[in-house]
Amino acid sequence: MKKRNIYLKTTSPEEAFDKFVNRLGDRMKLEEEEIPVTDALGRVSFEPVFAKYSSPIFNSSAMDGIAVKAEKTFGARENNPLTLIKGEDYIDIDTGDPISNDYDAVIMIEDLIINEEGKVDIIAPAIPWQHIRPIGEDIVSGEMIIPTNHVISPVDISVLLSSSITEIKVIKQPKVTVIPTGDEIIEPGEKPKYDSIFESNSRMLENLLIEDSAVVKRFHPVKDDYELLVEVIDKASRESDLILLNAGSSAGRDDYSRAVIEELGEVIVHGVAIKPGKPVILGIVRDTPIIGIPGYPVSAYISYINFVRPLIALYTLKKAKKKNMVEAFTSTRIVSSLNNKEYVRVKLGRVGEKIVASPLARGAGAAMSLVRSDGFLIIDQLSEGVEAGERVLVEANRSVEEMDKTIVVIGSHDMSIDIINDILSGSRSEYFISSSHVGSVGGLLALKRGEGHIAPIHLLEPSTGKYNVDYIRRMFERDEIVLVKGIRRRQGLIVKKGNPLNIQSISDIKGHRFVNRQRGAGTRILFDYMLEKEGIKPEDINGYDRQMTTHMSVCAAIKSDSADVGLGIESAAIIMDLDYIHIADEEYDFAIPKKCIEDENVTAFLKVLKSEEFIQKMDKIGGYSYEKIGEHILP
Amino acid sequence: MKKRNIYLKTTSPEEAFDKFVNRLGDRMKLEEEEIPVTDALGRVSFEPVFAKYSSPIFNSSAMDGIAVKAEKTFGARENNPLTLIKGEDYIDIDTGDPISNDYDAVIMIEDLIINEEGKVDIIAPAIPWQHIRPIGEDIVSGEMIIPTNHVISPVDISVLLSSSITEIKVIKQPKVTVIPTGDEIIEPGEKPKYDSIFESNSRMLENLLIEDSAVVKRFHPVKDDYELLVEVIDKASRESDLILLNAGSSAGRDDYSRAVIEELGEVIVHGVAIKPGKPVILGIVRDTPIIGIPGYPVSAYISYINFVRPLIALYTLKKAKKKNMVEAFTSTRIVSSLNNKEYVRVKLGRVGEKIVASPLARGAGAAMSLVRSDGFLIIDQLSEGVEAGERVLVEANRSVEEMDKTIVVIGSHDMSIDIINDILSGSRSEYFISSSHVGSVGGLLALKRGEGHIAPIHLLEPSTGKYNVDYIRRMFERDEIVLVKGIRRRQGLIVKKGNPLNIQSISDIKGHRFVNRQRGAGTRILFDYMLEKEGIKPEDINGYDRQMTTHMSVCAAIKSDSADVGLGIESAAIIMDLDYIHIADEEYDFAIPKKCIEDENVTAFLKVLKSEEFIQKMDKIGGYSYEKIGEHILP
Repeated sequence: MKKRNIYLKTTSPEEAFDKFVNRLGDRMKLEEEEIPVTDALGRVSFEPVFAKYSSPIFNSSAMDGIAVKAEKTFGARENNPLTLIKGEDYIDIDTGDPISNDYDAVIMIEDLIINEEGKVDIIAPAIPWQHIRPIGEDIVSGEMIIPTNHVISPVDISVLLSSSITEIKVIKQPKVTVIPTGDEIIEPGEKPKYDSIFESNSRMLENLLIEDSAVVKRFHPVKDDYELLVEVIDKASRESDLILLNAGSSAGRDDYSRAVIEELGEVIVHGVAIKPGKPVILGIVRDTPIIGIPGYPVSAYISYINFVRPLIALYTLKKAKKKNMVEAFTSTRIVSSLNNKEYVRVKLGRVGEKIVASPLARGAGAAMSLVRSDGFLIIDQLSEGVEAGERVLVEANRSVEEMDKTIVVIGSHDMSIDIINDILSGSRSEYFISSSHVGSVGGLLALKRGEGHIAPIHLLEPSTGKYNVDYIRRMFERDEIVLVKGIRRRQGLIVKKGNPLNIQSISDIKGHRFVNRQRGAGTRILFDYMLEKEGIKPEDINGYDRQMTTHMSVCAAIKSDSADVGLGIESAAIIMDLDYIHIADEEYDFAIPKKCIEDENVTAFLKVLKSEEFIQKMDKIGGYSYEKIGEHILP
Repeated sequence: MKKRNIYLKTTSPEEAFDKFVNRLGDRMKLEEEEIPVTDALGRVSFEPVFAKYSSPIFNSSAMDGIAVKAEKTFGARENNPLTLIKGEDYIDIDTGDPISNDYDAVIMIEDLIINEEGKVDIIAPAIPWQHIRPIGEDIVSGEMIIPTNHVISPVDISVLLSSSITEIKVIKQPKVTVIPTGDEIIEPGEKPKYDSIFESNSRMLENLLIEDSAVVKRFHPVKDDYELLVEVIDKASRESDLILLNAGSSAGRDDYSRAVIEELGEVIVHGVAIKPGKPVILGIVRDTPIIGIPGYPVSAYISYINFVRPLIALYTLKKAKKKNMVEAFTSTRIVSSLNNKEYVRVKLGRVGEKIVASPLARGAGAAMSLVRSDGFLIIDQLSEGVEAGERVLVEANRSVEEMDKTIVVIGSHDMSIDIINDILSGSRSEYFISSSHVGSVGGLLALKRGEGHIAPIHLLEPSTGKYNVDYIRRMFERDEIVLVKGIRRRQGLIVKKGNPLNIQSISDIKGHRFVNRQRGAGTRILFDYMLEKEGIKPEDINGYDRQMTTHMSVCAAIKSDSADVGLGIESAAIIMDLDYIHIADEEYDFAIPKKCIEDENVTAFLKVLKSEEFIQKMDKIGGYSYEKIGEHILP
């Protein structure tokens, strides 16, 4: 074994950040720059701005009408109209026109009796200064228009310009260099090799930085070459206020980040008690702070929000956005290791009175968990986790109003759920689906706990050969659940294109590499049923314990020759261009608690289910049929 | 009189918008464009996106350690370690490295006993597939990554790229042309003439459009020339999805917008029952919608949010941001005309249990009312207004948390209030000042109604010649108010530079053009006191009824030769470069309800008041002294 980096100390993220900022000291300071006001949207004022001119800069008419000298109108009465002569007693005037010092009142056009060309009658005197906007009514020169540290809005820009202020001193945006590294990294669009990884983290960091108003320079991926890294980081340190070095911060054999930073400067912290994101490095190179961001996408994101965002805030004086903390109840027990603050990504949705938080995939590599996530359940460093049904506070990225519009779908996954969500989303519906894939039985259990609106299920009852009905009768009270007819799917063996091993039935699996589904999945139940029917023991199946959670991941294993055969739905095989041997038709239906069936969100879901558009989109995929779709099977 | 446009019908804004959209029909459609994913931040997906590759695209190690064939490790026990030989039984592996089909499990480095170079001992068997991230664990090719109409985030960009998707179809941003018009309009930075107006509305519109993700083309200001306008609008209609024509939509003599639109196309609506913003025009020119935006800045803003923003939303499918409706209580009676929906700009701040809404200047020209505003109190078309203390719903642009951090200052205005706010803002304080200028007496009345934290006052008691103390004793219970020493200001006559009329005392005012302050202002009380002392009757003062609400606006009237003399504070005269004749020193102090004196926001205010920084900034202006600043005078 070569020598590897060690980071055993577990500093808390807060402590690590403080240490970092203290060490940086006055290397990090607020700078100013002068920019055109017309480019200042969203920027932050460096100092107060005072009006240069008043607005209006002249006394102006507030109405369309005539300008008069008030004292000349004092005799006008209803029973004694006064005739005014144009040029002598008045001039025509429009809203906004200047009032010269010869006049001191405006009479509205509506109050004039037009006599003949050049003459008008009035039946009431004008009060001095009536209908005149005095100079400086809105802004007086010298007045403070905006204070220090103010985020400039479209209205601010307008007011600054109306006072002829064309340049403004704003807080300079920090220059941040993002350096992706790694031998296996290729740019998206390039043809991948066996072990390629498309470079994507640096783009996430780049766009997070843009949202936080930094100026970003992204380097092309740099190979894991010590000398090259020294050269590149040295260059970046001379032209940046902050460097983000992506990957190479853990303890792997090719992870040089720590050594490179130590050669050029100083490692202040390596490794914090945070999960994902533990191997982060906080350092300094030639007076420039450098953050070694771990390589896994979720780790990179968590490192960003814990270290990069607060550092940028110190450079820009921007106030942190208030966190949207929401009270929720966990759908399941979540075990977390002591010693780490853990960021668990959760789906959120209101079911009945309470908001339910369901954890998503927890691996640091599960980037989709960030895409799908509605918020973070942050488990404290000193906690071992939370129990199912526990009341927790979640840092939500959706508003409570949005959660009220969520359709919580929990159970077996099928592409149809994504299609329904896509149709809802495209049709300006307020409703959207939050779906968790826990298998059919998991879905029914969630309904039982009051944690979902709809459970998609496909559960074969071996004794009857029928789908779904028996499970619901067994698990719920009579009439507690409405079972809505969904779609019919074809289940079968999925093998490589051309079926090179010539697998035709369940009994042909023996001796080949099988990949199974998780316990509680409808497909797993079907497989167990088939095994029993054929008299095959699980231990005779190579890979019986290798479990995937979706049809698509079963296909992926076969496609990549990591397995030879699996059981799954035809549509997944079609999408992945694999061969399919038909075993059984199955019913993929929707179990809905009776008390939810009239809810607006459930109604919106069922409306799409029964739509032409849905059938058309499903037909494009293939492998489905739709007899009696949307009809109630139970009760 | 020349013929003027007439718009007497008062269509409601909702009705007007519906009529407009119906008439536009399928001229307005959602378009798509394909752009690089790296440029897609904040854009909206036009169709669902499916993964092109799985992620990871190979089975990979989830740990640093060694890759093994699990079945070769089955014999290892705590009391019977198994020795594995490198190259034969295992290979070294780092987190993320691919696992070839020769191996099916990873053993963590922490679980290895390093024997000698090339040999390790293990004391437990490996379970097949342990510590391996299966291919497609995160994303499987063919899976839907994002649905239609999804706003693309940094994380989405990363996930798309990690699946090697480099281009994405997004909803096209509408092209909007903004055309400012008017003879008197000049570009900011140009030297103004007597009747010039700096062009600023178009920049407000431009930046609002940018925030709403349109692509904006702004024309240089166009003169009020019929033929020229026809030419310019005709050109714009051929290259835009929407035209905003600014000003020229009311009934003034030079307002050609309506006629030009009618010549080139059709006016669908002219004039809606909305205030400010009534003269808006909704029309269509060569299949391109055109909106005639009124010239006053507040009218322009209200027109934008009522007509332009919802139209852009239809082009872009973006969901409207949920309005932040807040329950508040009005600080004063607000009379509104029947027949118009009125947008009253209000300041909001929590005082005690309730949020107080104080109306700002209501004129359509009061752009600063938009800058200062914390929200809109929308008064319905069929309402005549609201009473003082009435419970209302306000469309707030601040969060409730921010309102809790507000220091509600209400009373007489002085530059010191702006300076304190600027210092709070620059110092990362969470607190900020919301100030309303209602004069000293108005401020005390607001405290009495429980609608403010701090009332700045300067009230001379004629019988004693003392400031503030007597008023508070008269208006409040004993110990109800703490009076905190503020600053000493110099009050006097303000005249033109060089004092051309040689005004030396109050009695010299007679025969010249005076400009007064509003009833209840400390300066007005001082003036009335001086008049009485000198035996001068108000009716002998030319301009006694001409009222300004701030010192600065008094100065502005004198500066522009719209008046000869006024009474005000020296600092205002200094800022405006006018001459000043000293009359009296006055005490500008802070009345604070005793129950608020320990509040954190009041404490933050008083801390700044007593700071060195405050004195330094005030001294830069001049005209102030600070004896006993921050001390309690009462009780």
